[in-house]
Amino acid sequence: MIQIRKAVPKDTWTIIAPARGDRPFDFSKPEDDRVSSTDCPFCEGNESKTPPEVYAIRNNDNPNSPGWKVRVFPNKYPALDNGENASVIEDDLFKTMGGFGFHEILVETPLHDTTMADLTEPEVRLILQTYVNRYKDIISNPSIDYVNIFKNHGRRAGASLYHSHSQIMGTPFVPDLVKTEFTNTRSFFERTGECYYCRLIESELVSSKRVIAENKEFIILSPYAARVPFEIHIIPKTHRSKFVDVSEDEIQLLSKILKNTLLALKNELGNFPYNYSIHTAPDEGTSWRGTKHYYHWHVEITPRITNPAGFEWGSGNSINIVKPEEAAARIRQHYR
Amino acid sequence: MIQIRKAVPKDTWTIIAPARGDRPFDFSKPEDDRVSSTDCPFCEGNESKTPPEVYAIRNNDNPNSPGWKVRVFPNKYPALDNGENASVIEDDLFKTMGGFGFHEILVETPLHDTTMADLTEPEVRLILQTYVNRYKDIISNPSIDYVNIFKNHGRRAGASLYHSHSQIMGTPFVPDLVKTEFTNTRSFFERTGECYYCRLIESELVSSKRVIAENKEFIILSPYAARVPFEIHIIPKTHRSKFVDVSEDEIQLLSKILKNTLLALKNELGNFPYNYSIHTAPDEGTSWRGTKHYYHWHVEITPRITNPAGFEWGSGNSINIVKPEEAAARIRQHYR
Repeated sequence: MIQIRKAVPKDTWTIIAPARGDRPFDFSKPEDDRVSSTDCPFCEGNESKTPPEVYAIRNNDNPNSPGWKVRVFPNKYPALDNGENASVIEDDLFKTMGGFGFHEILVETPLHDTTMADLTEPEVRLILQTYVNRYKDIISNPSIDYVNIFKNHGRRAGASLYHSHSQIMGTPFVPDLVKTEFTNTRSFFERTGECYYCRLIESELVSSKRVIAENKEFIILSPYAARVPFEIHIIPKTHRSKFVDVSEDEIQLLSKILKNTLLALKNELGNFPYNYSIHTAPDEGTSWRGTKHYYHWHVEITPRITNPAGFEWGSGNSINIVKPEEAAARIRQHYR
Repeated sequence: MIQIRKAVPKDTWTIIAPARGDRPFDFSKPEDDRVSSTDCPFCEGNESKTPPEVYAIRNNDNPNSPGWKVRVFPNKYPALDNGENASVIEDDLFKTMGGFGFHEILVETPLHDTTMADLTEPEVRLILQTYVNRYKDIISNPSIDYVNIFKNHGRRAGASLYHSHSQIMGTPFVPDLVKTEFTNTRSFFERTGECYYCRLIESELVSSKRVIAENKEFIILSPYAARVPFEIHIIPKTHRSKFVDVSEDEIQLLSKILKNTLLALKNELGNFPYNYSIHTAPDEGTSWRGTKHYYHWHVEITPRITNPAGFEWGSGNSINIVKPEEAAARIRQHYR
């Protein structure tokens, strides 16, 4: 049975059409894009091949040398640059601003041949703590409206280097997708007096068919109107609009649940490319006031098994060939 | 220099960061995904391997037999199905409707080993005329709000079969991206009293730096805030909100310009995957009244040279590593 489901926070329709999964060639193959470590600029010992680090967790006081666990530096090929002039030029037809912003690489491990799914929980915790630290530093710049923390795993998910890393981008605008989520969760709040995500957690725990796992602080689920097969959201049980306000306890439980979720995905699907990103409210200082009431930060994981095609590009909607309930059941069995 | 440009109709920011094109591995390779014709269900002689045709332009009166030039049938693995129940179920958190709709395949040529860029102008005209005919038939169903006509060329652009074809989907909702274009061009119209696209054509012809080619009826340009490298829009000079209202003269000139644009892209980039889709106003009967004043149909071509990554998935914005002015200059030189 084909259904068309509405994602309330994104106010967007997704077509859930499981029978299309029978098409020839529909799923890509898992990826083997390993590249030798000799020339890898992200490997321990090759620190001179990257721009100087802005942050690291290391055993010594020698920046840009070996001995680190997590290392952050400006992207050598930045999409935004804090040397650019942030001025806006606008007329009726065209509007542009200078490409001001921050674009940093976070190398997650000194080891070349590992993935976040294979790291230990304490290692993942260092990555998450680094997210928080870099977020705070970047958002303190008054021209930055939003800090986008995301990860590209695998070539087909947009990773240009194989060695496991995340990216942190501070942009002078609030991203469109997040703005849409603010608008729609605000209107839900105005209508019902409640946070959409808080209500969702309650409801999903009762029906349980899309829940993959939970712990004291987090619920992991396959969202009702998932845009892609095996899309997974990790949602904190405690209502907070901003990721940076997480407690130490949450960081610890998130590192466990994030690692285990990526491992469950890998066990079910193989080493597929994926992206994840942290969706968070911007500072109250922007035009998005009151987000602390209606927005609820969370992590969205989108495996890249299928490819957005002409329908997606032309419509902004998605066709998902795996029912979220089936995706949840398949991932749940690998969960530990 | 990095710029952040606003696409007015989509009200979305794109980061134009040409220096990122120097990254290792950034461009994919052109695709060689040829598959043998023996078992191809889209080949002449294999008509029994597809669902029965709903439309064809053929030399004879024998449906589902050889002798056709263009052939349309329901998708064997449909994303929407006119046998589904279109009822809507809704509560605060979840909203769903039955997957009612039409999903048809248009095989563009009986030949297995050709692409739209290599077809003759009269052959492309038959395809466009078929678009118009199928559009009219499908939109006459009162439950259909929009007809999405699009093409996936190449595996990485989502084509599951190699033989050249288009798709026609009638949906019971207006696609989100098109809705956004309506909203923003309507607000432009309310502010200025003019159609955004009519004003854009005037302005682009004066500056000419993003214009690739033009003829009596169409202008081809690389849009100011192009989302992907070498994105191209084909815009009719005559203001019409709906594609189906095109004149015979326009169909003829569009077939010429579409073929030549795809050929120019192929000559510049190699046989890269791409998608295109026709953006058109829905019927006045929907809640989108008055679109005939403020919306202007057009074709959007998006080559799939780069891959949307974590930034795009998490933000809804894009990073484009080729400046639209440079893309226009490079495509323009192949134009004839």
